[in-house]
Amino acid sequence: MFRINENYLQLNESYLFSAIARREEKFSALHPEANIIRLGIGDVTLPLPPSVIKAMHKAVDEMAEKETFRGYGPDQGYGFLREKIAEIDFRQRGTDISPDEIFVGDGSKSDTGNITDILGEDNIIAITDPVYPVYLDSNVMRLGNSSKIMLLSCGEKNGFLPEMPSQRPDVIYLCYPNNPTGTVMNRTQLKQWVDYALENKSLILFDAAYEAFIRDREIPRSIYEIEGAKKCAIEFRSFSKNAGFTGVRCSYTVAPKALAARTAAGGEVLLNSLWNRRQSTKFNGAPYIVQRAAEAVYSPEGQQEVGEMVAYYMRNAEMIREGLTQKQWTFFGGENSPYIWLKCPGGMDSWTFFDRLLEERHIVGTPGVGFGSKGEGYFRLTAFNSHDKTAEAVKRIKGWEL
Amino acid sequence: MFRINENYLQLNESYLFSAIARREEKFSALHPEANIIRLGIGDVTLPLPPSVIKAMHKAVDEMAEKETFRGYGPDQGYGFLREKIAEIDFRQRGTDISPDEIFVGDGSKSDTGNITDILGEDNIIAITDPVYPVYLDSNVMRLGNSSKIMLLSCGEKNGFLPEMPSQRPDVIYLCYPNNPTGTVMNRTQLKQWVDYALENKSLILFDAAYEAFIRDREIPRSIYEIEGAKKCAIEFRSFSKNAGFTGVRCSYTVAPKALAARTAAGGEVLLNSLWNRRQSTKFNGAPYIVQRAAEAVYSPEGQQEVGEMVAYYMRNAEMIREGLTQKQWTFFGGENSPYIWLKCPGGMDSWTFFDRLLEERHIVGTPGVGFGSKGEGYFRLTAFNSHDKTAEAVKRIKGWEL
Repeated sequence: MFRINENYLQLNESYLFSAIARREEKFSALHPEANIIRLGIGDVTLPLPPSVIKAMHKAVDEMAEKETFRGYGPDQGYGFLREKIAEIDFRQRGTDISPDEIFVGDGSKSDTGNITDILGEDNIIAITDPVYPVYLDSNVMRLGNSSKIMLLSCGEKNGFLPEMPSQRPDVIYLCYPNNPTGTVMNRTQLKQWVDYALENKSLILFDAAYEAFIRDREIPRSIYEIEGAKKCAIEFRSFSKNAGFTGVRCSYTVAPKALAARTAAGGEVLLNSLWNRRQSTKFNGAPYIVQRAAEAVYSPEGQQEVGEMVAYYMRNAEMIREGLTQKQWTFFGGENSPYIWLKCPGGMDSWTFFDRLLEERHIVGTPGVGFGSKGEGYFRLTAFNSHDKTAEAVKRIKGWEL
Repeated sequence: MFRINENYLQLNESYLFSAIARREEKFSALHPEANIIRLGIGDVTLPLPPSVIKAMHKAVDEMAEKETFRGYGPDQGYGFLREKIAEIDFRQRGTDISPDEIFVGDGSKSDTGNITDILGEDNIIAITDPVYPVYLDSNVMRLGNSSKIMLLSCGEKNGFLPEMPSQRPDVIYLCYPNNPTGTVMNRTQLKQWVDYALENKSLILFDAAYEAFIRDREIPRSIYEIEGAKKCAIEFRSFSKNAGFTGVRCSYTVAPKALAARTAAGGEVLLNSLWNRRQSTKFNGAPYIVQRAAEAVYSPEGQQEVGEMVAYYMRNAEMIREGLTQKQWTFFGGENSPYIWLKCPGGMDSWTFFDRLLEERHIVGTPGVGFGSKGEGYFRLTAFNSHDKTAEAVKRIKGWEL
């Protein structure tokens, strides 16, 4: 009989957010009157900014006329968008990235999940714990629960940043600002990893989906701000959280042309060419309308509008931080990130705290253990709800006698 | 040093359509006055139908208001679309497929390319020759130029349909109506393959991207019209060609719940669950606006509009067929398919014919050899241009003295 990829059998059956949804549904069924506030999943709540809406209507109208209709676009993304990204996200911030180093995608989940396609199966893969589950799952899908997957513990004593690995990994996933812990790496810390990768000829897969939330000028917004990073890192960016595109679907991957690998035969191959081949074989580009929407984010109005959205969410993060500070709970993040990572009070485990927060305060969050075993005893709150609901949630927490 | 997936080095460097574009550019530079007619790439030319445009504007407006804004949708697609697909594409045609057997994607290139993720690496994979390059390339990416890839020759004597393999394959790719040959399988022929797969416990990956072009009632539009197919086949469908969505990006995959595989340990696993896990880990759903656009295709107006679009293109196919018949050239397809597969006159090879057709008649088509070695000596023309240009191309061919 034909054979399936049995590595899938080693994955956890149920995805974290489905498990949360089921518990919430069960609670709601028993308590239909409860006014539940959701600070769980990292989904945005503000509508799309006006300049994005305008650009989308215009693009839809173009698709209605023979003269302006667009069929297949470039698999890598339209030039109009790749040029804006290169100019505004990189060159204007002093980093020289060219449009042909940028690949427009349909979301960072796809991009970070599919990147394994171009990697060999004999690499040692380092992944932080706790972690955004896609890095781990996409590698288990290829390798099974293999000794090739190395978990880098991120604990409280190190401010939830990973320590340097004792054994050399080939590939290192880093995500800063971090999901789920909300922690960031400053220039010195990130430079250590770039230097390590250069010295050890490792590849860094850098997820910068939350860079728009960085307030502190000392925190790099792109790994390419660190010298040498173009020779060792691929960066992933998303329009989901800064511009509210979780339902619009647009992202990009940066594969610098300076990033080469050596083949078994001793030749050199550019990761840019490999990713280009992957995308042109298994992807047909993001929708034209979506790419016009993303382009609008880079207009002066768009930049102002998304800046205001980010500021809105960061006000929520501030409210949560103030509340937790008054409560004298230990927490991380929320300063340069929409995520607050709190230590469950009284030594509770993550799911016990989840259940009590839901049952006693009608608030849904995300149990830290869902992101990895080192997340046990911690809990993630997000800043993506409205001011009113966030304020109400903070009030409920403050008045909570545990 | 970290290692790349070296199977990529075994892929052909340049993709067929880039090679064509380069030759066309070179010719245009030398002959800027030439009025080139493109019957090459299978891209649509008619704008989106009015009901689709209307639905997209409405969806964009919803994204502008807090109350109707949509963030993350279900990874598998919205219920409103999956229900319409199940009802109109299947149940109303007598096939019982349920919404949870349908996975909305962003294009058949992604779906047919990514499906290999859930398959084991020890399968023997049968692929027709000539073939849509994605099936072959996505397997070379996993397996290299391995003996595990079995090519099924499709030649003129068998009407460009594959003969039954002499050795048992585990996985069989079939695409009908076929790209590139435009040939179709009738019920009896398709039943032979379903019976073969059931008997041999093989999996059929059935690409039905062109089903809307079927005119003959004897030709099945879905493999599930054949008894037992739900136990052995995954089907891929696209909105690209019937509804003009090549730049909108929407597709779906049907993974019936009756389709199970046996694991090495003797357990049973549903391919529906595996594909669900793949998509929820590495894909975040098609954009909300795009899914509303696809939904509109199923409205009474939408159905009529896409029917007219398909009829428009099929009128082109008819013109080409009439012209080639008068010319007394041998050809296949064009009756239930937008592709016409012609035998290069005078025993010319595919690229010689390409060059002469471009240079002497200013028409761009696709060399058959680009789809596999058995395509050598053949040539693909598409019905996706306008009536005027297609008529002009036919006139040029008819007046051609070779």
